[in-house]
Amino acid sequence: MQDAIPDGFALAALGKGFSERFGPVYVDRATRRMAFRVAERHSNPVDTCHGGALATFADSLILAIRAGASEGDAHNPTISLSLDYVAPIPLGAWVEAEVTLVKATRTMFFIQSLITVDGEPVARTNAIYRNPNKTGASQ
Amino acid sequence: MQDAIPDGFALAALGKGFSERFGPVYVDRATRRMAFRVAERHSNPVDTCHGGALATFADSLILAIRAGASEGDAHNPTISLSLDYVAPIPLGAWVEAEVTLVKATRTMFFIQSLITVDGEPVARTNAIYRNPNKTGASQ
Amino acid sequence: MQDAIPDGFALAALGKGFSERFGPVYVDRATRRMAFRVAERHSNPVDTCHGGALATFADSLILAIRAGASEGDAHNPTISLSLDYVAPIPLGAWVEAEVTLVKATRTMFFIQSLITVDGEPVARTNAIYRNPNKTGASQ
Amino acid sequence: MQDAIPDGFALAALGKGFSERFGPVYVDRATRRMAFRVAERHSNPVDTCHGGALATFADSLILAIRAGASEGDAHNPTISLSLDYVAPIPLGAWVEAEVTLVKATRTMFFIQSLITVDGEPVARTNAIYRNPNKTGASQ
Repeated sequence: MQDAIPDGFALAALGKGFSERFGPVYVDRATRRMAFRVAERHSNPVDTCHGGALATFADSLILAIRAGASEGDAHNPTISLSLDYVAPIPLGAWVEAEVTLVKATRTMFFIQSLITVDGEPVARTNAIYRNPNKTGASQ
Repeated sequence: MQDAIPDGFALAALGKGFSERFGPVYVDRATRRMAFRVAERHSNPVDTCHGGALATFADSLILAIRAGASEGDAHNPTISLSLDYVAPIPLGAWVEAEVTLVKATRTMFFIQSLITVDGEPVARTNAIYRNPNKTGASQ
Repeated sequence: MQDAIPDGFALAALGKGFSERFGPVYVDRATRRMAFRVAERHSNPVDTCHGGALATFADSLILAIRAGASEGDAHNPTISLSLDYVAPIPLGAWVEAEVTLVKATRTMFFIQSLITVDGEPVARTNAIYRNPNKTGASQ
Repeated sequence: MQDAIPDGFALAALGKGFSERFGPVYVDRATRRMAFRVAERHSNPVDTCHGGALATFADSLILAIRAGASEGDAHNPTISLSLDYVAPIPLGAWVEAEVTLVKATRTMFFIQSLITVDGEPVARTNAIYRNPNKTGASQ
């Protein structure tokens, strides 16, 4: 069944606005994976997943590492975000990212991830986020 | 007035799906600029522009170079997309990108852009798109 | 002993010029790893590995995937190269990269890699190379 | 004459190690440009400029903005470095980068640059450096 959610994944708390309109997004913190299913609202004119939609998903991947990372009291502003798109993603696909926390420094989180559909890579991404734990930090 | 569109900008044809839900986006091909106004639907939990929203805008910047670049018959798949976020963007801001076509090769377009609000940088971005003019090209 | 080469690694054939001056670099194709030892010639003014030196190493990582990838008859021009530097690398360190081939398309190779010293991440990198097997390809 | 240095450019102080072996590199701070001439020591197996050599040049571009940026007492560690290579660069070419300081924050410098030979783009690059002025900063 297309809408089935694989074991281990739970709804991620995305907060209001652009993320909420994008969602739902799912997270499995035990295995540091995140996922979403491509719907019409994520599509581009040739009926595959829009590059901006996948970038929006990529921007949320810090949630695989930090609970509530995007919530108001622990917001992780993105400093840098990069994606390579290696294959088109069809409507209905279950898109899964396995997230590697490369490094947590006093001021930043560095992550990278391979994004797959049915085990086949469709994209790779990396990002730097600000670590809000540091008191008095500004960008 | 907040909703005024500066001279020279016209509505960009974004096509259906994720882009249409993001838009409107404006383009001034004479000066290779694109722009949008940050609305509630683009926001993050701390009421500034969401990183994924700005990435979605960035992904559309090829439209400043190519008319109908995102339309079905001349779709430009994104190969690579990168952004650095250098300042938060408040709701209501008019966000403008000045797009540099770095190179058009037989198979790819390379662009980079400085993204500003009121003349102050808020982000920079670069992207590689596939050039669909090449017959028989696959990704 | 500092100069010992771990089992499985063999000298990579780098060819003349900038690579040769950088080297030696080591490759273990069975495990898709590459490595080098940081010497004085790789250093920056504060006696750690220079960012450009690590970028030069990163640019060679396609060699972990393709035998003779950088040799004249099978040259893989780099299209795009990105690195995040997450920790300084001291002189004498054995720097190891585990390379993931994200995708080989008809025209391009996409890779990403985690770069470590003694198992601790010091950098991450990703790159796109042109696939020279495609006849008649130009950049 | 091939070795002539255009007006306005002066030798950049690169410091010892990898940079010194790469150099000379030239800077014109008034116009925020940097340049070098491609020599045999910068070459790849097909006798054009090596991707790692251009990355090393790119890593030095903060020098166009900050005097002595790479010297010991004001070292600017690189956090992130990215390049797109859009055309091969022949031996002997005078390679020039026009550097845009996108933003200087309390903790970071963001730059991007178009790299040209005889006015034609050969690459684009962007980088994030740590701002060492902030007391007590660690990476």
